Amino acid sequence: MGMSTTAMRDYLDGPHKAARDAVRAALAEHADLKDLAVQLPRDEYRDRVLDLLLESAAAGLPARGYPKEYGGEADLGGFIAAFETLAFGDLSLMVKAGVQFGLFAGAILHLGTERHHERYLADAISGRLLGCFAMTETGHGSNVQALGTTATYDDATGEFVVHTPTAAARKDYIGNAARHGRMAAVFAQLVVGGESHGVHCLLVPIRDADGATLPGVTLSDCGPKLGLNGVDNGRIVFDQVRVPREALLDRYAQVDAGGNYTSPIENPDRRFFTMLGTLVQGRVSVGGAAINASKVALTIAVRYGARRRQFGAPGSSEETLLLDYRMHQRRLLPLLARTYALHFAQAELVQEFARVFSADRVGERDEHDRRALEAQAAGTKALGTWHATETIQLCREACGGAGYLAENRLATLKADTDVFTTFEGDNTVLLQLVAKGLLTDYRRSFGELDPLGMARFVAAQAVEIAVEKAALRPLIERLRDVVPNRSDAGDPDAGLRDDAYHSGLLRYREEHMLSGVARRLKAGVDAGDDAFDVFNRCQDHVIAAGRAHVDRVVLEAFQSAVQEAPDELRPVLQDLYDLHALVTIEAERAWYLEHGRLSPGRSKAITALVNDLCATVRPAAVDLVDAFGVPGAAVDVPIVVPSQHE
Amino acid sequence: MGMSTTAMRDYLDGPHKAARDAVRAALAEHADLKDLAVQLPRDEYRDRVLDLLLESAAAGLPARGYPKEYGGEADLGGFIAAFETLAFGDLSLMVKAGVQFGLFAGAILHLGTERHHERYLADAISGRLLGCFAMTETGHGSNVQALGTTATYDDATGEFVVHTPTAAARKDYIGNAARHGRMAAVFAQLVVGGESHGVHCLLVPIRDADGATLPGVTLSDCGPKLGLNGVDNGRIVFDQVRVPREALLDRYAQVDAGGNYTSPIENPDRRFFTMLGTLVQGRVSVGGAAINASKVALTIAVRYGARRRQFGAPGSSEETLLLDYRMHQRRLLPLLARTYALHFAQAELVQEFARVFSADRVGERDEHDRRALEAQAAGTKALGTWHATETIQLCREACGGAGYLAENRLATLKADTDVFTTFEGDNTVLLQLVAKGLLTDYRRSFGELDPLGMARFVAAQAVEIAVEKAALRPLIERLRDVVPNRSDAGDPDAGLRDDAYHSGLLRYREEHMLSGVARRLKAGVDAGDDAFDVFNRCQDHVIAAGRAHVDRVVLEAFQSAVQEAPDELRPVLQDLYDLHALVTIEAERAWYLEHGRLSPGRSKAITALVNDLCATVRPAAVDLVDAFGVPGAAVDVPIVVPSQHE
Repeated sequence: MGMSTTAMRDYLDGPHKAARDAVRAALAEHADLKDLAVQLPRDEYRDRVLDLLLESAAAGLPARGYPKEYGGEADLGGFIAAFETLAFGDLSLMVKAGVQFGLFAGAILHLGTERHHERYLADAISGRLLGCFAMTETGHGSNVQALGTTATYDDATGEFVVHTPTAAARKDYIGNAARHGRMAAVFAQLVVGGESHGVHCLLVPIRDADGATLPGVTLSDCGPKLGLNGVDNGRIVFDQVRVPREALLDRYAQVDAGGNYTSPIENPDRRFFTMLGTLVQGRVSVGGAAINASKVALTIAVRYGARRRQFGAPGSSEETLLLDYRMHQRRLLPLLARTYALHFAQAELVQEFARVFSADRVGERDEHDRRALEAQAAGTKALGTWHATETIQLCREACGGAGYLAENRLATLKADTDVFTTFEGDNTVLLQLVAKGLLTDYRRSFGELDPLGMARFVAAQAVEIAVEKAALRPLIERLRDVVPNRSDAGDPDAGLRDDAYHSGLLRYREEHMLSGVARRLKAGVDAGDDAFDVFNRCQDHVIAAGRAHVDRVVLEAFQSAVQEAPDELRPVLQDLYDLHALVTIEAERAWYLEHGRLSPGRSKAITALVNDLCATVRPAAVDLVDAFGVPGAAVDVPIVVPSQHE
Repeated sequence: MGMSTTAMRDYLDGPHKAARDAVRAALAEHADLKDLAVQLPRDEYRDRVLDLLLESAAAGLPARGYPKEYGGEADLGGFIAAFETLAFGDLSLMVKAGVQFGLFAGAILHLGTERHHERYLADAISGRLLGCFAMTETGHGSNVQALGTTATYDDATGEFVVHTPTAAARKDYIGNAARHGRMAAVFAQLVVGGESHGVHCLLVPIRDADGATLPGVTLSDCGPKLGLNGVDNGRIVFDQVRVPREALLDRYAQVDAGGNYTSPIENPDRRFFTMLGTLVQGRVSVGGAAINASKVALTIAVRYGARRRQFGAPGSSEETLLLDYRMHQRRLLPLLARTYALHFAQAELVQEFARVFSADRVGERDEHDRRALEAQAAGTKALGTWHATETIQLCREACGGAGYLAENRLATLKADTDVFTTFEGDNTVLLQLVAKGLLTDYRRSFGELDPLGMARFVAAQAVEIAVEKAALRPLIERLRDVVPNRSDAGDPDAGLRDDAYHSGLLRYREEHMLSGVARRLKAGVDAGDDAFDVFNRCQDHVIAAGRAHVDRVVLEAFQSAVQEAPDELRPVLQDLYDLHALVTIEAERAWYLEHGRLSPGRSKAITALVNDLCATVRPAAVDLVDAFGVPGAAVDVPIVVPSQHE
């Protein structure tokens, strides 16, 4: 193919090349990183990860993402890119950095005001003040609005009393809680003057400078986990712990000394989701980290497949390379193509994140952008993390028994990334959120609507929206013209590699599913059924609609990336894009057949073309993984590095 | 539903209830079993697993499967059932037992003759002689015929010289090798009088009674693995190790003192596959163990889903149970149904295994039965182990962050079972073997044909067979009559719950795919293409055909089980069966649409009916997992056992 690996790598790195390279260089200096998870006992591993965290802080990794006033560089895009790149190395370090520099410091930055910034931000970014993000409880993960922890204002003393009223309200799975954290950003129901104002966040010290647990606080360890054992996840129970009034992170709601609660956002739901929305960075980062973990796995499995021989043509002197088998190509190369697709979608997301969060605007347009960003982040996170789970699993299987040995890294990678699909928002819940956002978009009204859609599935509102879906009908009609029904076309291959045809199909599917959901919701309500039951009956349809939307966004991100690529890279990227597009359509071909958008002949032609494209991409496969630029320290494992055993 | 859990459990346990209950009782006595993997350092864990192994031997577990002359009970079916049941407990124990009592002792029994039986069998079964099954090498896993280890007969001394000629010929991943094994059943190229006779098996001592490595043997440790860390997998290198002539397991080939090689099976390929075929028990057992591991995961996830609440209808006082959400049902209940389906398919396989291996017949009919059994074992192993990987993954996700904690067992279960898809035969290779066997079946000739189909993909033969596939044509025509094209039918729901309709569709698919493969192979060869290339181009098609066959076999096993069930169980089993059948068809509906076997309307009706059946099965879900009879010691984990934290 003659592709330049360096040119491809530069193109993938995009505007944040420097940030990525800095982390690559740091990882390259720690050849032991990929083996920490296996070699160290749990507590030593946790302490080593803390050392690495502090080292990364000293090297300026987190500072990149914070305001210049507090020692930062205010380069949000570079910060996320650097953070994602950490996923090439030890995933516990990546997650602990996410807890400390993303969630904890992020809560202070976004939910706090100047006094909090002045007092804590520099220490949080440097790692001098280690903190927790204490949101999830034993009884509530996804449904954050229903948290049980309370923070009750006592106007006699001017303090908040933080308390865990039930066993289910125990804070759970909290990173940094079991060993290192000294302070927690605690999400609790704020009660002022006997009235509950919903979930707010307060800074609560949990350990003193010597690491001793503070009075009223009970800390325990979540114990061993499937992976990420370098992160000290723990549980926190509060027994009437008093903190000063200033502990409330009060950007979106204030309590004065006299016990008066005020907020610039009147609607409690909207206030809640606005506060939560500022924390979208976590989701953006996890999606990116998952995509990068997939790159590590593919680098190992593709290189292995390109050197491992097994079986072969009768009578030939050499056995055949695994990657020359059709089935091996079929299993790995579509995942390689999708990794590129998701990389470009993630790059778009990061750019949009940096734009939205750099702007200091207010007003409806800004809020609309934020909601759109949250949906985009939710969708990319869901697809990126499921992709990682699937890819790393397949890579493990493609390396056989060797893939099962810890020394070849896939085991750790698989175990560490597995929780990504359910933390920072369970993927199924996130896809509902995406779909809900799309339905809301059509309504173009954000007044009283719960804009994030996380609240109790918001069955009632969804149904309201459905009533207005009639407006969607003309769009569907238009799409029908855009995507001709090819059932009668003579040549089943015609146009199969046409970008517009791909996005036409995906857009059609997205719009059709959304309008179908809306119609079903409306019909259910018209029939007098219980709104929640109506919603629940459509739940699989809603989630599929969300997924269809994200599939389309990812596809179009890849299209743009191909168009904007340097001439020398465009041919190979175009092949990879076509493979991704057709695999995506192939995976949903039953739906297209059911809806008359594919003829049987054309559907079969797509499968045949996917096979051909796998063979087309095959010669470039090793270059394409090399272009990810994963440092050798992370992927030079025994099965891919020639040794005495070959 | 009023189903009796006990009655269902008895029905599932079938003829080997006593064997299963004995293992259940033993597991119930070891409440720590489910936590060993997490709590013990590696070497302690390995030694504890050895203790448990010896305890199980003392309790008579392995004896069940061996001849009465050597202290056994000759109850093959009960042996496999007991072994499968071990998978409810610690999977390392199950695998180590498989190595010792299945593979090592099995090699002695099946490949050896009386002198080997007399000398070693009782010790192997009691665990007094710990052994390895040294087949796989660093360079060769699936392609056993290409192993590099040599055993050269030296007629001057009457010994075999066992040697590792290249680094790639190192024995690798060998259970019991790193720590406990004293002897290895070594597979090596047998060289007699300068002539190679292909792979044979010899017993080679590797450690003395004190555990010291013997001269000429180099043993090393494979190190930490993704899971199964209670098994001491290791590597073995032989440097001109001499063993007496009697070390050759000589049931299928003998070498006399003068260095004359003889075998009752003239064709070397046929000899090799006959020898390998006697070891099918390993595959039978792993499939069953995987299915049982799925039961453990489902027991945890279904019970959790039936008590965990999150979100819910606005205004209702309680949140909604996870398992009442459509999407949660959609994710878990089809896997529950498929677990039942695979359980019944496995029970049929075990029965056939016991029948074939109990008979002391010879002749063509016997050989045909063995080949059929091998194919059935390969197919059930492939589907059962992929099912376990998928099910445990989904169960983990369905339990969210709690599922990620080791205390809730899914983590260990996932890590331990992951290698099942690639050991005891890589699943993709096994499905090829199934398809190849079916093509061979049509030819009804076993003379010179490689009967197992594992050899070098046997492209040439497969193509030969294709020539005779014309004979298949009439069968296809007949099927066309059996399964009317429903595209024009008025009511898309008609007959959707009809057993004959389901098997008709699955049989049609199987036959159509097989004949399609045959046609493509023939066309490629007719066009003068290289036979291996022709085969490789069809590889995905071949594997899909194998899978289609196994899907049909599993479906029909479930049908028989419903028909034979006690009256009281039949209704709930019928619902579960229908769910399984329709999910299977739904998963392949694109193919049926492409081939005119489903109309779009009917295809959509199937999806709708699957949703309805999930809701139908939902009330019985907890009873259906309880009926698996997994001991509390294995599944009473914090998320399913009420504690102070709820």
